[in-house]
Amino acid sequence: MIQIGVIGYGYWGPHIVRNFQGLEGCEVTVVCDKSTEALRRVKKAFPSLQVTSDIPEALAATNVDAMAIVTPVWTHFELAKAALENGKHVLVEKPFTSTADQAEELIDLAEKKKLQIMVDHTFLFTGAVKKIRQLIDEGTLGKLYYYDSTRVNLGLFQHDVNVVWDLAPHDLAIMNHLIKDKPEAVVATGEKHLNAHEDIAFITVYFQNNIIAHINVNWLSPVKVRTTLIGGEKSMVVWNDLEADEKVKVYDKGVQITSREGVYELLVSYRSGDMWAPKVEQTEALKAECGYFIDCIKNSTTPFNDGRSGLKVVKMLEAANQSIRERGRIVQI
Amino acid sequence: MIQIGVIGYGYWGPHIVRNFQGLEGCEVTVVCDKSTEALRRVKKAFPSLQVTSDIPEALAATNVDAMAIVTPVWTHFELAKAALENGKHVLVEKPFTSTADQAEELIDLAEKKKLQIMVDHTFLFTGAVKKIRQLIDEGTLGKLYYYDSTRVNLGLFQHDVNVVWDLAPHDLAIMNHLIKDKPEAVVATGEKHLNAHEDIAFITVYFQNNIIAHINVNWLSPVKVRTTLIGGEKSMVVWNDLEADEKVKVYDKGVQITSREGVYELLVSYRSGDMWAPKVEQTEALKAECGYFIDCIKNSTTPFNDGRSGLKVVKMLEAANQSIRERGRIVQI
Amino acid sequence: MIQIGVIGYGYWGPHIVRNFQGLEGCEVTVVCDKSTEALRRVKKAFPSLQVTSDIPEALAATNVDAMAIVTPVWTHFELAKAALENGKHVLVEKPFTSTADQAEELIDLAEKKKLQIMVDHTFLFTGAVKKIRQLIDEGTLGKLYYYDSTRVNLGLFQHDVNVVWDLAPHDLAIMNHLIKDKPEAVVATGEKHLNAHEDIAFITVYFQNNIIAHINVNWLSPVKVRTTLIGGEKSMVVWNDLEADEKVKVYDKGVQITSREGVYELLVSYRSGDMWAPKVEQTEALKAECGYFIDCIKNSTTPFNDGRSGLKVVKMLEAANQSIRERGRIVQI
Amino acid sequence: MIQIGVIGYGYWGPHIVRNFQGLEGCEVTVVCDKSTEALRRVKKAFPSLQVTSDIPEALAATNVDAMAIVTPVWTHFELAKAALENGKHVLVEKPFTSTADQAEELIDLAEKKKLQIMVDHTFLFTGAVKKIRQLIDEGTLGKLYYYDSTRVNLGLFQHDVNVVWDLAPHDLAIMNHLIKDKPEAVVATGEKHLNAHEDIAFITVYFQNNIIAHINVNWLSPVKVRTTLIGGEKSMVVWNDLEADEKVKVYDKGVQITSREGVYELLVSYRSGDMWAPKVEQTEALKAECGYFIDCIKNSTTPFNDGRSGLKVVKMLEAANQSIRERGRIVQI
Repeated sequence: MIQIGVIGYGYWGPHIVRNFQGLEGCEVTVVCDKSTEALRRVKKAFPSLQVTSDIPEALAATNVDAMAIVTPVWTHFELAKAALENGKHVLVEKPFTSTADQAEELIDLAEKKKLQIMVDHTFLFTGAVKKIRQLIDEGTLGKLYYYDSTRVNLGLFQHDVNVVWDLAPHDLAIMNHLIKDKPEAVVATGEKHLNAHEDIAFITVYFQNNIIAHINVNWLSPVKVRTTLIGGEKSMVVWNDLEADEKVKVYDKGVQITSREGVYELLVSYRSGDMWAPKVEQTEALKAECGYFIDCIKNSTTPFNDGRSGLKVVKMLEAANQSIRERGRIVQI
Repeated sequence: MIQIGVIGYGYWGPHIVRNFQGLEGCEVTVVCDKSTEALRRVKKAFPSLQVTSDIPEALAATNVDAMAIVTPVWTHFELAKAALENGKHVLVEKPFTSTADQAEELIDLAEKKKLQIMVDHTFLFTGAVKKIRQLIDEGTLGKLYYYDSTRVNLGLFQHDVNVVWDLAPHDLAIMNHLIKDKPEAVVATGEKHLNAHEDIAFITVYFQNNIIAHINVNWLSPVKVRTTLIGGEKSMVVWNDLEADEKVKVYDKGVQITSREGVYELLVSYRSGDMWAPKVEQTEALKAECGYFIDCIKNSTTPFNDGRSGLKVVKMLEAANQSIRERGRIVQI
Repeated sequence: MIQIGVIGYGYWGPHIVRNFQGLEGCEVTVVCDKSTEALRRVKKAFPSLQVTSDIPEALAATNVDAMAIVTPVWTHFELAKAALENGKHVLVEKPFTSTADQAEELIDLAEKKKLQIMVDHTFLFTGAVKKIRQLIDEGTLGKLYYYDSTRVNLGLFQHDVNVVWDLAPHDLAIMNHLIKDKPEAVVATGEKHLNAHEDIAFITVYFQNNIIAHINVNWLSPVKVRTTLIGGEKSMVVWNDLEADEKVKVYDKGVQITSREGVYELLVSYRSGDMWAPKVEQTEALKAECGYFIDCIKNSTTPFNDGRSGLKVVKMLEAANQSIRERGRIVQI
Repeated sequence: MIQIGVIGYGYWGPHIVRNFQGLEGCEVTVVCDKSTEALRRVKKAFPSLQVTSDIPEALAATNVDAMAIVTPVWTHFELAKAALENGKHVLVEKPFTSTADQAEELIDLAEKKKLQIMVDHTFLFTGAVKKIRQLIDEGTLGKLYYYDSTRVNLGLFQHDVNVVWDLAPHDLAIMNHLIKDKPEAVVATGEKHLNAHEDIAFITVYFQNNIIAHINVNWLSPVKVRTTLIGGEKSMVVWNDLEADEKVKVYDKGVQITSREGVYELLVSYRSGDMWAPKVEQTEALKAECGYFIDCIKNSTTPFNDGRSGLKVVKMLEAANQSIRERGRIVQI
């Protein structure tokens, strides 16, 4: 029986607690939050759990094998470091850390201690991302051309990070998961309208082999959009995460090019075929992720969404922020 | 009776001929195209028109007061220059010219000759753009925050220009028409997959007063999207040009910010109110534009979509191309 | 403190328990279900509650002021009757009873005992229905012309009732709530494909003053549709309950008719104006309904969704079933 | 060269003329309309055509092999009869005639004269209907369960017929084309709000083998809807004719039923699989239909949309009207 502690019981913490509680082979033992109101809510929902507002106490709890850290990003490093030093595996909310240096220090520490780090990029466990990954792996899309995501809505304003650190980690994790080629450089632009942090931003990531990725994030959109286009040589995907069914559509559409005698003699022809919406698994992504975390601990296997995977995202976030500050200057990764 | 000559009878030329033919106060007299097949189609549809494949003959025709130049962009300068030198007003297909220098030379020539130049940015005459302009002018949106357009579809591949020169002129003309503040600089990224020209590109335009504009253009999208979000302090607009009705939606949604004692003490609150889709004029935009061209000639008034307006777009296109070539380097306008 | 008992802890029961538990001024004391598995789930979620699989015991519990009956329709009459006889107010799941006679007997009994009956037509407490009712009351729609609802999806097959009794109670309750004129007669058609009960049906309800209502219910639709059109002389409403936002759209569209000298001289003209999506309250409907039930008990007021209101729906369901059996014969209400 | 005459140059006539003009192997020779304004429009568009406002003259024209009758329905019988008597094939606008008797008389006359009658049910020539027919023929849907069409919009009010005769002929022709089983009876309801004719109606058609069809037609809807659900044992189709692409979607969804020991022991299970939008032919339906008419004349073959096919629709329209008048009484066909 793996024993789980949870630090942070704000928006996402209750989902973490509920999912671990519902799994076989593990139990939540301790929940820690500075807010007594939050602890009161824990007690009401799960009367048997031990609660505390004392972080060091939680970090040192002997009835905890693994600690879920579900707090603002600027606290991740200190909390995860203390947990690892206390011999606990960690599940860290995304983004992993505030800086790449912090991420690297945690990775080293975990390796030395032979402990697992998992970064909670929940989207990687959704039916939609799993299906798109499968389509790419099976060669349905052919050589990839581009990844283009729009992730906009009204709020949620967070005062400690900008819209890039709030919304882009999803897309960065997903594109790293889907695109085998290496990201090379980032160009990002953005603007602040209401406070000290960007509320709108546009990020281009250049990958090897002419693959280009783009992310449009915006806290000031009156409508919510969660749409990603993925273009490939053989077919193309439109993933609309707001559709109840038919989230993933595969288009047998594309362009064929036949070279004749030089670059201006290319013959371009269009393919326009069927569209196909494969059935997508409907299980709760977080439940699958929590179960996978338990399995990785039990079997001492490194999760694919480990510290290194989280580090990649942090590096790209750092690069995006730097590029925005320098008004679009390209930043190598 | 204003007499109109038309050079170029490919995709757009027939619409130009049909609209001028249908207007009071003008008549099409000469149509010129190098293709005899094109001239055959003119003759079938409009048996009374004079047709020719000889461009100099058309440019010198004495029964032409104004010449519509509906040919590929690289030919605009020579044709428009010759037409102006022959004392004819010109309506030039967008984008105006291949370079800003060419545009400036044409503007000077037209002023010297006291002739009108109109650049065919048809979208400025649509009911949707007119309504959005009205909403902005009336203060419905308040201070503008951003303009964010997505204009993607499969094809049409043009071998002589990239996707920026093909699709972005629409958005550049529209944003210049809607945003009173000055554009300052461009950052653009893009990629080539099939031939020597970019088929996907992302353009950021920084305006004065923290307004940011973004254009997403893509020839390799399996679905057609024509959606623009415009964010303002008081309300926000979503313009979906593919909707049959309700193209323009105005959201009484937004963010209010109250400063207390420092930047980290800002109180952000959300407004979430009604949505409203004002009735949008349904008349054909090109018909309105052709009529306006005739009026401008008759009254010797400078059209708002004149050479200078076309020049602005060309400068931004040049800046975008340069930025793409230098992988996102900021280019001042 | 009003004490609530709940009989039935299948799909809807947990929502009823959770909502009453969350309200001030009442508490759930007893939950009864024949299934020990259901009772186990109650205990896990609400360890403090008294549970029992013995229905008479629950019905006689002295710590229950009001009984929520959340069981299949064929059991409603016996359970509600026993509860009333034991001096308890009742909240009965929709549809109220299997027959109009049963409903009338319960209404009489409750009146004699001075107890409240509320029928759980939750939709009447949604923001959408409240907004539409307000629009009608304020005269925004003008004289009503029609109510046309489509409520189709795949399953849920219930073996004891047909699709009319499963899905149409929602629409019947809503239309009775919105239309002040009296329903006069029902014409219904339907068909069975898989078992002894209709899986698809079409119901017309004739109201006074030429108002016509229509309900399309179908268990065999591959897509889920929840759309209602309501036509009035002055404006028209489209209510799409599956939209996250903008559920209710009001169209300033219509037809104006001016009589000249006879029926063939009518001048019909179309109004085509703005569309407007008023903000709709987002609170949970069932929570509002449970709170209203408590208030009605405390203040001895008759709820608007009382036994008589439930009886009207049952009469229309009986009429619809009879009409279907006789292949569309009109049945007076 | 088949010579075509056209009577009626209102809304649909110009499309008929343009399509026959564009076809090889035929030419339009005469166009007849009572309105001199209409004839002026013909002359402008097609200066070479002979025009006349004299109907008998047109009907007797010796340079006409086939007459297209594109006039209001109450004139079809007299015009078609005269044309047939003058030895001309006829293409008659839908619905074929005002009564079944008229239709039968025309069918007899054409047979005696060995002339072709085609009824212009253009929808049968659309890519969508052809694809659905193919899916049914290939067994993709399996045994059919239902056909459910919604065809609503604002106007067009026609003073001489009700909404059933205006909009339902499309659906009746399509369902007769798709469903091999025989229609048996009609139940219809409707209401008048503005003049002497129903502006909203709901039609149920009972077919053999438990297939049920339903048509919802409405001139008073603020939004335009053109959606048809077709349910089958193996898969189901949603046809949305207003979608630019993906008009036809095939769902691998359904219900499986396994009988055990009696009707109440049926085991119902749901299949929920992929969705698939086959590519649908994009050619203009009317062009295909006109070409088919010419072929049928040349080859003396009876078109599938012949007089008998048109008669079936007229019989169903008559039955629907009768049922509406008698408030839903079932009318056998």
